[in-house]
Amino acid sequence: MGISPFKKLVSLSDALGIVLENAYPLERTEDVGLSAAAGRVLARNLVSPMDVPPFDRSAMDGYAVMSEDAAGAGELNPAVLKVTGELFAGDDRLARIGKGEACRVATGAPLPEGADSVIMAEYADEESSHVRVRRAEPRWGNVSRRGSDMRAGADVLTKGAVLDPAKVGVLASLGMSSANVLARPSVAIFSSGNEIAEPGGPLGAAQVYNSNSYTLASLVDRTGGAARIMPRIEDTEDAVRSSIASASGKGFDAVAISGGSSVGERDLLAGVLSSMGEVLFHGVQIKPGKPFLFGKAGGIVVFGIPGYPAACLTVGYIFLAPAVRKMAGLPADRRTVRTRLARRVASRLGRAQILTVKLTEKGALPVFKESGAITSLAAADGYIIIPDDTELVEADEEVEVVLF
Amino acid sequence: MGISPFKKLVSLSDALGIVLENAYPLERTEDVGLSAAAGRVLARNLVSPMDVPPFDRSAMDGYAVMSEDAAGAGELNPAVLKVTGELFAGDDRLARIGKGEACRVATGAPLPEGADSVIMAEYADEESSHVRVRRAEPRWGNVSRRGSDMRAGADVLTKGAVLDPAKVGVLASLGMSSANVLARPSVAIFSSGNEIAEPGGPLGAAQVYNSNSYTLASLVDRTGGAARIMPRIEDTEDAVRSSIASASGKGFDAVAISGGSSVGERDLLAGVLSSMGEVLFHGVQIKPGKPFLFGKAGGIVVFGIPGYPAACLTVGYIFLAPAVRKMAGLPADRRTVRTRLARRVASRLGRAQILTVKLTEKGALPVFKESGAITSLAAADGYIIIPDDTELVEADEEVEVVLF
Repeated sequence: MGISPFKKLVSLSDALGIVLENAYPLERTEDVGLSAAAGRVLARNLVSPMDVPPFDRSAMDGYAVMSEDAAGAGELNPAVLKVTGELFAGDDRLARIGKGEACRVATGAPLPEGADSVIMAEYADEESSHVRVRRAEPRWGNVSRRGSDMRAGADVLTKGAVLDPAKVGVLASLGMSSANVLARPSVAIFSSGNEIAEPGGPLGAAQVYNSNSYTLASLVDRTGGAARIMPRIEDTEDAVRSSIASASGKGFDAVAISGGSSVGERDLLAGVLSSMGEVLFHGVQIKPGKPFLFGKAGGIVVFGIPGYPAACLTVGYIFLAPAVRKMAGLPADRRTVRTRLARRVASRLGRAQILTVKLTEKGALPVFKESGAITSLAAADGYIIIPDDTELVEADEEVEVVLF
Repeated sequence: MGISPFKKLVSLSDALGIVLENAYPLERTEDVGLSAAAGRVLARNLVSPMDVPPFDRSAMDGYAVMSEDAAGAGELNPAVLKVTGELFAGDDRLARIGKGEACRVATGAPLPEGADSVIMAEYADEESSHVRVRRAEPRWGNVSRRGSDMRAGADVLTKGAVLDPAKVGVLASLGMSSANVLARPSVAIFSSGNEIAEPGGPLGAAQVYNSNSYTLASLVDRTGGAARIMPRIEDTEDAVRSSIASASGKGFDAVAISGGSSVGERDLLAGVLSSMGEVLFHGVQIKPGKPFLFGKAGGIVVFGIPGYPAACLTVGYIFLAPAVRKMAGLPADRRTVRTRLARRVASRLGRAQILTVKLTEKGALPVFKESGAITSLAAADGYIIIPDDTELVEADEEVEVVLF
């Protein structure tokens, strides 16, 4: 077991800069059905192939008329028009009105030829084939004009747009049953360490259950990526090397290996990465998460994540999640609230402390226990970052809580 | 075609109150694998069945010692101890140390019997079976005590907790490979109207593509529900009645029927609901979305949603989404930003206007076109609500934008 301290730690902001610089937005696209399109990122600009609505249609229940026939009509001097037909929504009969005529129309019905406005039913009284119009309506009043929502040839959605329900509705309105979207970054999640047992199985005397694979996979999936939990790997150079090579060969976009919490195990991953590709940094001035290692191998990015559960998931939130979002083409998503710190907190100069907190009536209450405790995060609503040049944050000082 | 105005409109807040009052949290539960558990709602309190960590373990690479053996040790007066063994993480060999002895330990290794602290490797020099300890460590220093993360018998998660990655990690740490969670409220999504054509198919002369089923389904799915898009239904009493009955019979928790934009069609749904169950209100003092109808039939809630795309999705955001979240056992989720209105907006007294806006450098810019235009929402980042007693909001007035 080699025992050696880290050679050179990078700062939190430098580390994040290097990670994001190396996390390229994917260019791979795929077609997904409309029902699965929400939350995905549009892969190309969308020009409308058609007018929406595709025809002038009535926006009201009422009577389609020539606006000039009802010009000046009022309660005291109604215009009287002859009702010559009736159109429902979806009615594709050819209808037309002439001067002095009206056509009963339902909301959504096509406007008959010749008509250029619709009198609302409330202002019209029909009796024996005639209708008394008690209100004038300007030209195109109560009419949804053809192309008023989207015009054929117009830019309607932009590459990179995140499809929310309304944008899914735009695709549907244009008759598209699927969307061409960016692929989700696929992340192969490995955990290493002989002390790791899988949930659902038996636990050996010196073992702990694997939580890291599940916390990281949940985070990746909820961040716009597609995680795949891989079998546990041995802490040997061969096992680590072949796992990374196989993930790269199978087309994964990133590898996250958690574990290797001892210095020897960390050095092992660093050595493998150096020989296969490149270690971009190894060790960050943060707590928890100091042993975090980041590099590239086989053309993909590799996150060497500390094995202790709270350190692991903290590194997940701080580094892996923003990288996945960038690869996915998604905008950064940082939900924060400003509040006061519920009690004084000491920190150590020279490293940024990522302190998990619970939002309480008294403000942000620190709940961090230790790097090994998953409850350090499970009991928290988010975290504050105490910068590396700060030794003390007083109770009642205002802090920004980044929400999980 | 019956033409009749609404009899009595309810206010926005009354309508929302009635909807939420009738949207009961589901009691149905299901087991999901850990990888699919994030975002779901825990169905029962969770008591830890075991200690985590399950044994005292080393939190550092270093030497397990009896703390009294190193008491008072320093750079100038190191304690010299005999190294009698070595333990790695996962090592289940029985190890023990006696007085004057030390055991090399890796991070995560079980603490040997007899030891009560770990000296960090940085403060220890090993040479020919002996280690010079240059720093004392208090009792249990650098040791993660058994049960310090979670203690057997302790309450660790509460019924109703939303499983974020860390809480998924709690389940994994306890050896659970699945989670018992509340079922997602299932919503049968119907659209009616002869003018509706399905995306991907041909479009008749007086037809428009169905967007409502897709916008509502996307919204329901992203709100914690499980939407199922059903075949389009005819605007007949029989079709509407049998659709609701079949959804109820198949175990859906809610029905959303969009369409029926004309007064006649609306009355049809109201009539069916009255005979099968109850209309709780019909018509709300809002724009868009006035024709919204809400009731119960066959033991489930029925949302009668206006057919115009912007009105439909607005009603979805304002009423359906909060109802789904409540049925799902999820907390209300209202992301808002405060900003200034980019231009003056007029509204009509007596009804609340739900005005979609885009967030720009100049503030919230209204982008609402009309109830029929899906781009009224697709171009927006969220909406503001202009209350029913407000006629005018001036440019530069502060507004609260509810984000989509």
